[in-house]
Amino acid sequence: MNRTERSRIKRAPKRGYYDRETIFRILDAGQICHIGFIHHNKPVVIPTIYGRSNDKLYIHGAAISRLIAVLEKGIDISLSVAHVDGLVLARSAFHHSMNYRSVVVFGKAKPVADADKTDALKIISDHLISGRWDEVRKPNTKELKATKVLEIEIDEASAKIRTGGPVDDKEDYDSDIWAGEIPLKITALNPVDDKKLVAGIEVPDSVRNYYP
Amino acid sequence: MNRTERSRIKRAPKRGYYDRETIFRILDAGQICHIGFIHHNKPVVIPTIYGRSNDKLYIHGAAISRLIAVLEKGIDISLSVAHVDGLVLARSAFHHSMNYRSVVVFGKAKPVADADKTDALKIISDHLISGRWDEVRKPNTKELKATKVLEIEIDEASAKIRTGGPVDDKEDYDSDIWAGEIPLKITALNPVDDKKLVAGIEVPDSVRNYYP
Repeated sequence: MNRTERSRIKRAPKRGYYDRETIFRILDAGQICHIGFIHHNKPVVIPTIYGRSNDKLYIHGAAISRLIAVLEKGIDISLSVAHVDGLVLARSAFHHSMNYRSVVVFGKAKPVADADKTDALKIISDHLISGRWDEVRKPNTKELKATKVLEIEIDEASAKIRTGGPVDDKEDYDSDIWAGEIPLKITALNPVDDKKLVAGIEVPDSVRNYYP
Repeated sequence: MNRTERSRIKRAPKRGYYDRETIFRILDAGQICHIGFIHHNKPVVIPTIYGRSNDKLYIHGAAISRLIAVLEKGIDISLSVAHVDGLVLARSAFHHSMNYRSVVVFGKAKPVADADKTDALKIISDHLISGRWDEVRKPNTKELKATKVLEIEIDEASAKIRTGGPVDDKEDYDSDIWAGEIPLKITALNPVDDKKLVAGIEVPDSVRNYYP
């Protein structure tokens, strides 16, 4: 990825990564991103779902939504995806930390052409739950018209990762204060049938495969 | 909370909440926030940890960090905390959704005075893991000097919440497509002792109490 002054990791530079593989892996593991943009000269941050294909991210929204109307003009955006992997508990307050994987992307959004809209929506759907798209009723003309999809080319991006246990000052290691990590992860609980589900319909492959 | 044109929920207004209790509950359940600000005329979004006390949020960073240097000037910021509670799987692609709780805050950051820095750091620490602060070595003068803490008054804010199963079009309910929800939650795995932990030190109360 382009490594500009803006996207260079300045604090804790050894935690910085700029290769596509690392950046894509972190993006692909996320469920929501946070998009930052300027509206009426003020910053706005909004969470939204997304998908990725090669160097492009896709977001969508109601054709009449404010977010989409503002972004589709091709203004600058910043986009962040962050995973919290654990609390890092040191012997000193100062060295407490967090294990995480995060990516910050800079770019511009532009509308996806009508002809490519269905493909882009499938990318977002596959991102959230692989295979689901093929099981459901596809968008009809009215639904497609009510939906806008934007494409963001990932040009400038950087990742930041912290792993491992706490790092304390030498003189604190002999203390009787406990130190270690509380690992955190997102867990999927058992699927819940819709109350109005027709009797006898089994949980489909996409849902079964969602569980490790 | 103030309910201005900017923070009013425009899409799906029935999902919007503006009361302190709801907004604080969502903020308090978060581990990281995403802060958006304008730097060199471009939007930047960065994830960071935070704490809350009454109407104020606190963030911190190295005194020499770029984020802190930019924000402490009192520029406008937008801050978002979002929890993903589940994937909502409808019979139609169009009605797929997500269960979530999110808050967007608008405000300005300002530096916390040196005299209040320790209290503010305790608020951030307590936010991540209650009671930990009282167990560890407190920051010394050098560490306090190396840390800046910023305070953001929550003036304008809104919450957005979606719960429940999918809502499909009438004509899709008879279909044999499965519909329902995959609930998601953040789980804490068992605590991991630091490799250099002095033998015989037990997991402390703060860590034990972290688990439900």
